[in-house]
Amino acid sequence: MKFSIDKNLLVHHLKKVAAIIGNNVTIPVLGNIYLEIKESKLILRATNLEVSIKTEIEVIAEKEGVTTLPSRTFTSMIYKLPDGIISFDNNDSLTTIIKCNSVRFKINGMDPKEFPEEETMKDVRKFVFNKKIFRKTLQKISYAASTDESRYVLNGILLSVRGDVFTSAATDGRRLALVEEELDIAGELDGDVILPSSSVAEIVKSLDFDGEITVKLSDSKASFITDDTVIITKLVEGTYPNFRHVIPEAFEYTAVIPRIIFNEALERASIVVLDPEEDSVFVEFADNKAILTANSQMGESSEAVDISYEGPTMTILFNPQFLSDPLKNLDCDDFVMKLNDPDSPLAIGGEEGFMCVIMPIRT
Amino acid sequence: MKFSIDKNLLVHHLKKVAAIIGNNVTIPVLGNIYLEIKESKLILRATNLEVSIKTEIEVIAEKEGVTTLPSRTFTSMIYKLPDGIISFDNNDSLTTIIKCNSVRFKINGMDPKEFPEEETMKDVRKFVFNKKIFRKTLQKISYAASTDESRYVLNGILLSVRGDVFTSAATDGRRLALVEEELDIAGELDGDVILPSSSVAEIVKSLDFDGEITVKLSDSKASFITDDTVIITKLVEGTYPNFRHVIPEAFEYTAVIPRIIFNEALERASIVVLDPEEDSVFVEFADNKAILTANSQMGESSEAVDISYEGPTMTILFNPQFLSDPLKNLDCDDFVMKLNDPDSPLAIGGEEGFMCVIMPIRT
Repeated sequence: MKFSIDKNLLVHHLKKVAAIIGNNVTIPVLGNIYLEIKESKLILRATNLEVSIKTEIEVIAEKEGVTTLPSRTFTSMIYKLPDGIISFDNNDSLTTIIKCNSVRFKINGMDPKEFPEEETMKDVRKFVFNKKIFRKTLQKISYAASTDESRYVLNGILLSVRGDVFTSAATDGRRLALVEEELDIAGELDGDVILPSSSVAEIVKSLDFDGEITVKLSDSKASFITDDTVIITKLVEGTYPNFRHVIPEAFEYTAVIPRIIFNEALERASIVVLDPEEDSVFVEFADNKAILTANSQMGESSEAVDISYEGPTMTILFNPQFLSDPLKNLDCDDFVMKLNDPDSPLAIGGEEGFMCVIMPIRT
Repeated sequence: MKFSIDKNLLVHHLKKVAAIIGNNVTIPVLGNIYLEIKESKLILRATNLEVSIKTEIEVIAEKEGVTTLPSRTFTSMIYKLPDGIISFDNNDSLTTIIKCNSVRFKINGMDPKEFPEEETMKDVRKFVFNKKIFRKTLQKISYAASTDESRYVLNGILLSVRGDVFTSAATDGRRLALVEEELDIAGELDGDVILPSSSVAEIVKSLDFDGEITVKLSDSKASFITDDTVIITKLVEGTYPNFRHVIPEAFEYTAVIPRIIFNEALERASIVVLDPEEDSVFVEFADNKAILTANSQMGESSEAVDISYEGPTMTILFNPQFLSDPLKNLDCDDFVMKLNDPDSPLAIGGEEGFMCVIMPIRT
C-alpha cells in the first residue's frame, strides 16, 4: 500500500480510533490499528471485541493494500511528527515505512489476516438524530447508570422506542435519569436495547462536530454512523426493569433554582461531607430560599441561595452527588425541582424531555 | 483569633504552604496547617519534619490567637469560596468559623500545642541570589540526582562553596549536571551541604516571583528566605563524592546544535526505544549534520538535523533521557556538545556556568 495524508487530518481520525483500544490487550492484534487503502480511501479500524470503530478518509492513494500497526507506537509517531504531508509505503503488509520531511520511521505491524472481520448488522431499526443533541442526551443520563457489576443490566443505558417516543434512560435503583424525544417517523420501530456504558463513552467522544447521526438497532448490536465514522457495539443481554413506576404521578410543589449558583453552593457544602453514603447535605426549602447545610466530625457548612419557591418549609436530605450529577450536565440557567414531601422521590427538570428522579435519604 | 483577608491572597499563600503536606501523614497534626495571628500578621506554617515552610501575610487582624486546621478540608473550603473578603473567628483555638458572603463554615482543628515548634538555625553561612536564577539553577541540575534509594547521598543536590565559587551539582554516577556561579563576597564561607531532592522540589515551587532569595547553610539545616516565606530543610548526612574527576580535562571537538529542533528529533527517535536501559538512540555526528537513529523490535527511526560540526564522523550511543533532561531545562537557542570519542564522556553546555557530563553507552 502507498499513500500520502496531511498530518493533522490523520491525527484527528487516529484519536477517535485509538481511543477504544485498552491498555491491557490480551489478544495482541487488538492492540493494533487496521489500515487499508481501497480506491482513494484510507480505512482505519480498531476493536476491543465489545465496541468496534471504523473511519474513512480521502487520501492521495498510489497503491491499495492493508496492514495493522501497533496503536501506541504508531500514534506516538504520528502525533510527534512536524506538520506536513506524511507518506506511507509498504510492500509486504508487515513492515511500513513512514516519512515526513527529514523524518523516516520503519514500523513493524502484524498480519492483517489476524485482525477481526468488520462487524455487520441485520434486521435493523433506523433513527436519525442531530449529532450534538444525541451526544448531549447521552451525557444527561449516563451518570445515573449503576457501577455495581453484579447489576449487569443496570450498568447499561436503555434506548427504548414506544410509538413515536424515543426514550434514553439510566438508573442505579436510587436515581433515574431519562430523556424523551419525539420521533417524526412512523412504523414498526418499537423495542428496547441496552448499550454497555463503556461504548456510550466512546460514542460521546466520537460525536465532535455538527451534523447528523444515524442510529441502527438490532437484537444483538447497535451502530452509530456519522459522515466518516461507524461505531458498532454489542448490546447488554437481559431485560431492563420497568423504571416508570418510580416516577411520581404528580408533584405538589415546584422550585426554580439558579443552576450554577446552586451547584457551587452544593460543592462547598460537600466539602465537610466525608463519605457521601453516610454524611449528606441538607437542603431546606423555605420562602424563596434554599439553605444548604452539612456537618460531620470535620465541621459544618451553611449557605443560603435565592430561589423561587412558595411551598411549605421542608428539609430534604441528599447524597450531594445525586444532585450535582444532573446539574453539571444541563445547560439551562435555571433548573426546576419538583417536590412532594421530604421522604418521597423528587424530580429535577428544566430542559425539554429531561427528567432526573432522585430518592432522598430518609431522615 | 479574629481576622479578615482577601480570598485570592490567602489562596496564593495556602498553595505554597499546603504543598509540602503529604497524602499519608502518620502523625495527625502534621496533616494540619498552623495559623497564628500576631500583631497585624497571619503566619501560616506546615512541616513534614524534613522540610518546613512559614509564610507571613499582612491582614486586618482584630484579635491575636492560634489554631491548626486540617489541610485538605481547609484548603478545599478556601479554594471553592467566591472571590471576596473571608473572615476568620475562633475563641477556643479548636473550632474556627469562616465566613464569606452568604457562606459559613465551621471547621474543627487540632490543638496548636501539638504542632512542631518553629525550626531555628545556628552558625550559618549566608548567600544572596536572584530568585529566578536560583530556581533555574536547581532545575538545570536536579534531574541528574540518583533515584536509587540505596545511594542515599546521591539522592540529594550538592551545594558547595570554594573561595568565591558557588557550585550546585547532582549526579547519579552515569551523568553529572552542575552550575558554577561566582560570588561577589569574600570570607570564610567554604563548605558543602547536601539538600534532599524532595526539599529542592518545594523550594523550586515557592520561588515564583522576581526578587532576591537568601540562602543560609549550617551543618544540619539549610534555609531559603524570600520576602514573606521561609523554607527550612534538613540536610542529607554524609560526604558527597568528588565528582570533578569525571569531567574530561579537554575536548577535541565541538558541535553547536539547535536545542528545540534536536530535542524534538530525539523524542521522535525515542518512540521506537522500548527500554531506555537496553535500547538506545544513535547520534552520528557528520559534516554539519547530526543523524539520529534508533531501532528495536518495534521498528526503526531515522532523522537528520542540521548542526554546526566540523570534526570527524563519529557515532555515539545515548540513553535518550540523558540528552533530553538537560536540553529541556536550558533556555538557549543553540546548545554546545563537546566531544572526544564515542566511548568517552561528553559535555553539554551553552549557558554560563552550566555543564552536563554524560557517559555514552559503550558500543
